[in-house]
Amino acid sequence: MKLLRVGRTGSERPAVLDAEGALRDLSGITGDIDGAFLAADGPARVAAALAAGTLPELDPRGLRIGAPVARPGKIVCIGLNYRDHAEETGAAIPPRPVVFLKDPGTVVGPEDTVLIPRGSAKTDWEVELAVVLGREARYLESPAEALAAVAGYAVSNDVSERAFQLEHSGQWDLGKSCETFNPLGPWLVTPEEITDPQALGLRLSVNGVRRQDGNTRNMIFDVAHVLWYLSQYMVLRPGDVINTGTPAGVALGLPGTPYLRPGDSVELGIDGLGRQRQTFARA
Amino acid sequence: MKLLRVGRTGSERPAVLDAEGALRDLSGITGDIDGAFLAADGPARVAAALAAGTLPELDPRGLRIGAPVARPGKIVCIGLNYRDHAEETGAAIPPRPVVFLKDPGTVVGPEDTVLIPRGSAKTDWEVELAVVLGREARYLESPAEALAAVAGYAVSNDVSERAFQLEHSGQWDLGKSCETFNPLGPWLVTPEEITDPQALGLRLSVNGVRRQDGNTRNMIFDVAHVLWYLSQYMVLRPGDVINTGTPAGVALGLPGTPYLRPGDSVELGIDGLGRQRQTFARA
Repeated sequence: MKLLRVGRTGSERPAVLDAEGALRDLSGITGDIDGAFLAADGPARVAAALAAGTLPELDPRGLRIGAPVARPGKIVCIGLNYRDHAEETGAAIPPRPVVFLKDPGTVVGPEDTVLIPRGSAKTDWEVELAVVLGREARYLESPAEALAAVAGYAVSNDVSERAFQLEHSGQWDLGKSCETFNPLGPWLVTPEEITDPQALGLRLSVNGVRRQDGNTRNMIFDVAHVLWYLSQYMVLRPGDVINTGTPAGVALGLPGTPYLRPGDSVELGIDGLGRQRQTFARA
Repeated sequence: MKLLRVGRTGSERPAVLDAEGALRDLSGITGDIDGAFLAADGPARVAAALAAGTLPELDPRGLRIGAPVARPGKIVCIGLNYRDHAEETGAAIPPRPVVFLKDPGTVVGPEDTVLIPRGSAKTDWEVELAVVLGREARYLESPAEALAAVAGYAVSNDVSERAFQLEHSGQWDLGKSCETFNPLGPWLVTPEEITDPQALGLRLSVNGVRRQDGNTRNMIFDVAHVLWYLSQYMVLRPGDVINTGTPAGVALGLPGTPYLRPGDSVELGIDGLGRQRQTFARA
């Protein structure tokens, strides 16, 4: 099932794609797609309504697509979680997940303009598998329990300013939390459609040039391990988003470090989770 | 003006202390004290209602005090922002603010039990001046503009697990984001009561032994500079909380590193902002 939010920024309407790909309005079922909706078995109610054929159709023409989850409580990111990406940045393979946070206010829709911060010379891309929580995860006993807490998966662009991240502070959050730095979506794809989250191709192009072409099978710490690990340190809550790391091919690791410039167009996608396209502009 | 939230966790009621220190109910003015209330000049409406004498009194007996702001969008922390604290931890005086984030879900009331995480041997305290935003701050022109964005000030305990923070990851967020790790309050004190945020004594005791005794005049980067600086990198929004750093005297820097143990009692306070007291317990 593909859940999404459509409409203008700040007043998105919840929706779902039906089996024919038509857009169906969920306003009669929930005010929004958020942590409370996910925690209250909202997706099961949507599935039942889809099966009953009771959801009104929406005209998709001209409708903006927003991020598929409203107001994440937090965004947790895993750094250096693909062996090839760790190598390209000159970092050692981490013995434990590298964990940092990103301002949840950075989330925007998958086609929204992304702003290059003032003073930035090193704005970079990162295609990532985002995991959205549907249940609380706190001191999970083992990774085997972890996937039961997942509400779904989405495409995420963990946009990063490398000078802010690596030169202005030893702490990375500063270069990860700039305005509009987390395009998310188009859809929140529920787990029954993603039989194996460790077998998804991820790819990203800049101005039509393929830059990243990875597969989640190459994660150092897989989704279940990441969720289990995080739950030993913090409480993961419904609506929280986990960005699980990026494969090789970011500007930081490429010859000539071709960082993003105003007017650049970035396209990214993950198998089964849809595609994003952003134009970059000056803040 | 001292704004607060009283009642059980998750169902707190907004309130204010009147000139005589009596507790007055704000339920007729707002559903909660949150970013939307602060952005919509809520405090001015409260001041008018206080002046008009129209607010019903609440019986404070047996009422829990919650955190004074509901659902912060983010918590931004400044590390090593007091010269004496940087020295005690063996860190250099930072040339720029050290910025990291903390899970906003860690916020609890000022008297709530704080949980020592499972596997923790190095749970530490940090009394800090918290600044709560009332207006958006984005690319502020200068520090001189910054204090106009402040809704108020509060006492914050930026509880930290030093092994998680410094040994389990080069990124500090992991040791800052554990469950219950941010007692906040008792009050959100509006700026007219705090004529100079750089002249506030801060102190903290553990089991009756004074451990921290600092003054905000010793910040390396003052509140206005911090807000201006952050606004060059991220958008600060109404309801966001900034923990502005801690003075010397944390367990990490003391002889014998006397980290917190279950049953320990921590008391902390800041001039004009009230006091907190937490008992620490096993998670």
